[in-house]
Amino acid sequence: MNGSPIPSFGFEIMHRDKGSQARCGHLRTPHGSVETPNFIFCATKGAMKSVSLQQMREAGAEIILSNTYHLLLRPGGRAVERLGGLHRLMDWQGPLLTDSGGFQIFSLGHGGVAQEIKGHRPFENDYSRTLIRVEEEGAVFRSYVDGKQFRLSPELVMETQRQLGADLVLALDECTPFHVGKAETEASMERSHRWEERSLKAFLAHDDGRQALYGILQGGVYEDLRARSGAYIAGRPFFGQAIGGSLGDTAERMHEVVAMTSRYLHPERPTHLLGISGFRDIWNGVACGVDTFDCVHPTRVARHGIALVPPSLAEGRGFLNLKNSRFRCDDNPINADCPCYGCRSFTRSYLHYLFHARELLGGQLLTMHNVAFMVQLMRQIRQSIREGRFAEARKEW
Amino acid sequence: MNGSPIPSFGFEIMHRDKGSQARCGHLRTPHGSVETPNFIFCATKGAMKSVSLQQMREAGAEIILSNTYHLLLRPGGRAVERLGGLHRLMDWQGPLLTDSGGFQIFSLGHGGVAQEIKGHRPFENDYSRTLIRVEEEGAVFRSYVDGKQFRLSPELVMETQRQLGADLVLALDECTPFHVGKAETEASMERSHRWEERSLKAFLAHDDGRQALYGILQGGVYEDLRARSGAYIAGRPFFGQAIGGSLGDTAERMHEVVAMTSRYLHPERPTHLLGISGFRDIWNGVACGVDTFDCVHPTRVARHGIALVPPSLAEGRGFLNLKNSRFRCDDNPINADCPCYGCRSFTRSYLHYLFHARELLGGQLLTMHNVAFMVQLMRQIRQSIREGRFAEARKEW
Repeated sequence: MNGSPIPSFGFEIMHRDKGSQARCGHLRTPHGSVETPNFIFCATKGAMKSVSLQQMREAGAEIILSNTYHLLLRPGGRAVERLGGLHRLMDWQGPLLTDSGGFQIFSLGHGGVAQEIKGHRPFENDYSRTLIRVEEEGAVFRSYVDGKQFRLSPELVMETQRQLGADLVLALDECTPFHVGKAETEASMERSHRWEERSLKAFLAHDDGRQALYGILQGGVYEDLRARSGAYIAGRPFFGQAIGGSLGDTAERMHEVVAMTSRYLHPERPTHLLGISGFRDIWNGVACGVDTFDCVHPTRVARHGIALVPPSLAEGRGFLNLKNSRFRCDDNPINADCPCYGCRSFTRSYLHYLFHARELLGGQLLTMHNVAFMVQLMRQIRQSIREGRFAEARKEW
Repeated sequence: MNGSPIPSFGFEIMHRDKGSQARCGHLRTPHGSVETPNFIFCATKGAMKSVSLQQMREAGAEIILSNTYHLLLRPGGRAVERLGGLHRLMDWQGPLLTDSGGFQIFSLGHGGVAQEIKGHRPFENDYSRTLIRVEEEGAVFRSYVDGKQFRLSPELVMETQRQLGADLVLALDECTPFHVGKAETEASMERSHRWEERSLKAFLAHDDGRQALYGILQGGVYEDLRARSGAYIAGRPFFGQAIGGSLGDTAERMHEVVAMTSRYLHPERPTHLLGISGFRDIWNGVACGVDTFDCVHPTRVARHGIALVPPSLAEGRGFLNLKNSRFRCDDNPINADCPCYGCRSFTRSYLHYLFHARELLGGQLLTMHNVAFMVQLMRQIRQSIREGRFAEARKEW
């Protein structure tokens, strides 16, 4: 290691489950390594909403994600670079991933694709439709900050991500909504491949060992397309691979598509599943060999009074809605077994009160709780794989 | 001390300034003691806005205040009592003060008296005018939570404060706006005295040594009325005294009124000046013998991008507006000498960005910064008194 100024990237698989493709690994980056499977929390615009990254660390978060699309528009890649990069700006010393912006440009642009692709979650942003047109060169859109026109090309995305300076970066792809047919999905996948090829070329032209690039598999719900996309990505020197595109419109379909897609993944590369955080989805993803997940869901719902809990605490569901009147006089912590600040210090009744009084502290405490919950969940998954009882633990959930 | 289950209250003056009435003391409560002069931060509705009390402690806060009026309406005194009291509910182990609710009922009721009494700060609440009428028995008003009618009487205020369980509690007074004439101010003062007498009686009927009561001096800007009010409060067994009512409509007038009122204070009792946080106002208040101050201002302006700083850092003013475009590329911390988390970890440019991107983290970081600033200011004031150079230090500011 001596003599090498920048610690290298790496991914080592340490344990494999016998009954599935689940695996435990170490994902190494210049800003430290994380054990996998793990969950990546979303500091979308270069900040967590309602908590500091110090509080994120205390809650157990090890790796976070920021959004190239939003940061490109404000404060801009060059501004972040001049100020020392995103790690320094946010004061985050751990591993950091930036996504390519493709998902945002298409979902915000169409005004509803996010819901279509990821299921029917409430669509919180009220950006007007900002996508102007998609050209072979890139996607032309209007900034929601100042109306300025941008062309999101693979080259701009790679340059911006270099300026932001995250450890793990993503190639630009086109997001295809699931309601389109096979021919359109195929054409879109092929464009994604061309954009990813250009992303890789732009990445390698400036590669100094500080960043590692993930390719993204497209192909929607069609197995032959997923097979082609898998081969395309696996055949190129990407460090990691992400499963993108439409995964179908129901949880069951998503599990099928992830399982089917997993057959075409490079077996030794770290694998990321984009935008997924449901418990069953995570257990199923891990069973298919997924190493990392990300989603705004755990921290977003926290701001609306939803605390994630083991199903045994919530009549089989995985959450409590603390705004519910039955918590008005409930003197218990959210979860007596949870080590988070909120559970150590406060009652459900106080949290119930905070949400009704619209005190920001409620969202802050639940954000830390939900982070601690996801951290614990991923730890349990890893432990069950190491101890050879993954299938059993999965059933318990 | 052994054998006494509840540590007693006390106030000891340790140092006196030679050139003024400034003094250093220890204010002891069952939840610990604080050195005076000190600043009391406002957890108005039983929570700080945008930071946790853990973060408040880290920023150096020693004593906080909550608001009887708001907590009476939601969740209600009985609910707080059943849940173990406000200290337990908020997880605050230090000294805690609750005000009587008088200020809120009259200021929110009239819809503008707060501004008149305290100067022309923006009036952030949009409660409609809720005060129905003032009777000798108490003030009749409508709850802004559910429309229910309440009568805020001295007895209800003392019962509610007992249920909340703060260490330091305030008698109920009537707040007189400054635009009324002397006759109305006098009549209002006399009603305040009768209400404070009833507050004291209700307090003593249940006194178990867990709380200590402050009387409030009224009398507006009229010296003879202030003299009468001072004598009235000093002649009754209140633990402490607060300077309330109109202090005039300008900073200069306020300093005159506080100086004039201070002549009629009980010389050995802890003295609180309600709703004041300007630097000069604090230095002047301390020079008049004031021991504690409170105000929402330092934490409220933080949420709007205002960082408190020594005048030397801000062209003679005491603040920086971080939303200002000149901070867009400013790579410095707010104040390199400040020990707060924000100043240790982040640049002005990042804070500027956070406020423009409407990320809650900006308000959170500035709240901690402004708390740390006030804590440092009060520490410097105490040190200057102890070291016999109060007048000198006051001039430097």
